[in-house]
Amino acid sequence: MRQPFSFTFYVASWYRKSPYWERTVEAGCTSWDVYNHMLIPTLYDDDEVEYRHLLEHVTLWDVAVERQVEITGPDAARFTQLLTCRDLSRCEVMQCKYAPIIAPHGGIVNDPILLRLAEDRFWLSLADSDALLYCLGVQAFAGLDVEIREPDVSPLQVQGPKSKYVIRDLFGEEVASLRYYRCWEGDLDGIPVVVSRTGWSGEVGFEIYLCDSSRGLELWDRVMEAGRPYRIRPIAPSDQRRIEAGIFNYGNDMTIEDTPFHVTGMERLVEFSADFIGRPALERVAERGVDRKLVGVEIGGEPFRLWLEDFWPVRRDGETVGKLTSASYSFRLRRNIGYAWVPIGLAEPGNELELLSPDGPVPAVTASLPFLDPTKEIPRS
Amino acid sequence: MRQPFSFTFYVASWYRKSPYWERTVEAGCTSWDVYNHMLIPTLYDDDEVEYRHLLEHVTLWDVAVERQVEITGPDAARFTQLLTCRDLSRCEVMQCKYAPIIAPHGGIVNDPILLRLAEDRFWLSLADSDALLYCLGVQAFAGLDVEIREPDVSPLQVQGPKSKYVIRDLFGEEVASLRYYRCWEGDLDGIPVVVSRTGWSGEVGFEIYLCDSSRGLELWDRVMEAGRPYRIRPIAPSDQRRIEAGIFNYGNDMTIEDTPFHVTGMERLVEFSADFIGRPALERVAERGVDRKLVGVEIGGEPFRLWLEDFWPVRRDGETVGKLTSASYSFRLRRNIGYAWVPIGLAEPGNELELLSPDGPVPAVTASLPFLDPTKEIPRS
Repeated sequence: MRQPFSFTFYVASWYRKSPYWERTVEAGCTSWDVYNHMLIPTLYDDDEVEYRHLLEHVTLWDVAVERQVEITGPDAARFTQLLTCRDLSRCEVMQCKYAPIIAPHGGIVNDPILLRLAEDRFWLSLADSDALLYCLGVQAFAGLDVEIREPDVSPLQVQGPKSKYVIRDLFGEEVASLRYYRCWEGDLDGIPVVVSRTGWSGEVGFEIYLCDSSRGLELWDRVMEAGRPYRIRPIAPSDQRRIEAGIFNYGNDMTIEDTPFHVTGMERLVEFSADFIGRPALERVAERGVDRKLVGVEIGGEPFRLWLEDFWPVRRDGETVGKLTSASYSFRLRRNIGYAWVPIGLAEPGNELELLSPDGPVPAVTASLPFLDPTKEIPRS
Repeated sequence: MRQPFSFTFYVASWYRKSPYWERTVEAGCTSWDVYNHMLIPTLYDDDEVEYRHLLEHVTLWDVAVERQVEITGPDAARFTQLLTCRDLSRCEVMQCKYAPIIAPHGGIVNDPILLRLAEDRFWLSLADSDALLYCLGVQAFAGLDVEIREPDVSPLQVQGPKSKYVIRDLFGEEVASLRYYRCWEGDLDGIPVVVSRTGWSGEVGFEIYLCDSSRGLELWDRVMEAGRPYRIRPIAPSDQRRIEAGIFNYGNDMTIEDTPFHVTGMERLVEFSADFIGRPALERVAERGVDRKLVGVEIGGEPFRLWLEDFWPVRRDGETVGKLTSASYSFRLRRNIGYAWVPIGLAEPGNELELLSPDGPVPAVTASLPFLDPTKEIPRS
């Protein structure tokens, strides 16, 4: 397939730069995206080279764009529970949850990783939407005593099979042995950080949340130094790898128009044992069922280059019935894979579709998720 | 000054394209920005050529990125009043207001143009933040009967001294004679639109809000055709012109961290005759005063190229006391102008500052706003 349309982009003061910016430029980053009003590296090298390195060694990602919403105060636990369809009564201190934020009508506001750092201190590590504003809106009339802010936190991801060794050499055995979706708070010779056993790759991985942006270059250098024996290298988040793993990209695959019941694999995240905003709306959806679904698709045609430039219409019997939202070439499966919105009647695996690419029709078939089993030890929490 | 850092940007499905996209490419647009998760043209030609055309003729801007929040329902007026510090009891149907949206702590969530299209139907024409999410958050516990959504609306701006003739030839004398900050709803041979006498240029201008994105190319072509006798051409929003006019860029000049009392010229927008979210916080700010202010600055050194790449530290007596947020070369004033955050003690015009550019110190002096008087007939409403 053709590579996406490209043009010259001029950096401007209205995009916030990561505290790791200089190092990503020095490391040869050639392209960035805009995410949460910040620049995020999207390509250093050939995307297959980056993908292979992630699978075999260890990689460092500048994901300072994962902005945090911090909720503190006496009512922090009650307030945070209002925001998400996950049941937080079972969320221990230093535990993380994949926690969709739900609007009054049931739509997904954001799909952050929630970190419970204390009984009354929560972080939402955001995907690409200003969920801070949603939280401030809820605060207006919730009648709860909380403080809500974006703290000075800038995450890195350390992903790949050797990431454990890097984390061990930096933080010790205890941190390297964190269970999935658990976190730790401390410092690296005085650099304040939180470390969580999470990531956006489907590989073994960690996130290091830097809590003082003035020390970004120092932290980057420490991680690169500790990773040298394990061949660490900076890469961009891999669209190929996340699609293989069945991971979604908020704002692209699903939006505020969709509920968790509309997205394959997100249904189980709705826990009606909890009380939250949008619960009545989601109860209605659960009862009535959905009329469309985001599903996996295997796609014919030439291998995709990089990522999808724009949604493609999904057709069946000559009628447009949905849209393709993501597509990449899986270097291991040796085929194109992606996600598409289809009518509920076509949501089961094995339904044949036609995709309307800018260069003409391309055949596709619905598929079960994930495309590749995640590393055995990675259950999503 | 050096031109901002640039790189190759690849379009991706996670950026929404404007319904005018194809026409902007055909018209020779060479660079885009990301704004409200969409692509907006930022450069077609030389920026001085675009600026001169805006001052002398008429120009067409693709500003589909100005997403709307639509608030309807029996309690729409009460709900919308909760969101903004403007007193909407004085806002008539088909009137517009520059209406900052205020968070519980008094910070600015967004600074949209509000359009009252009916007693119980409002649009917020947004700057760059997901204020839709803020509105949905407020809805959760406000106890008011409203519907909130992003409608299918994609604005164009028609700006420049000849814009009146283009609007007259398209929509008739009545629409061309709209008073400032008034709007009209109707259609152009069946293409549903709203037209308002507003804009981001300080020149005479209008916005045409297309209400059916499937008809974008058709509307674009109609406007270009009607504008031909007046030498209409597509340009990007002009950073030079908006700074001359004392117009701010939300997310860049001011953010959720700032209240209207912190921004020169926005103080008068806080109307305590109204009851709104954040009013107690703003009353405290009004009483205590602010410790810092966004002010105009005239800047020495070489002429700026395009726009500011990143904030520059503002220094006084060798200490960093603030930051420069915007800077452009005014082709008419023949000097660099911009905005900077300074301690309140330096907010009056005439205070000398030192800016720390990447190439070394540059002198600056605080200045009154606007830098150039707006067209006489343009009071901001």
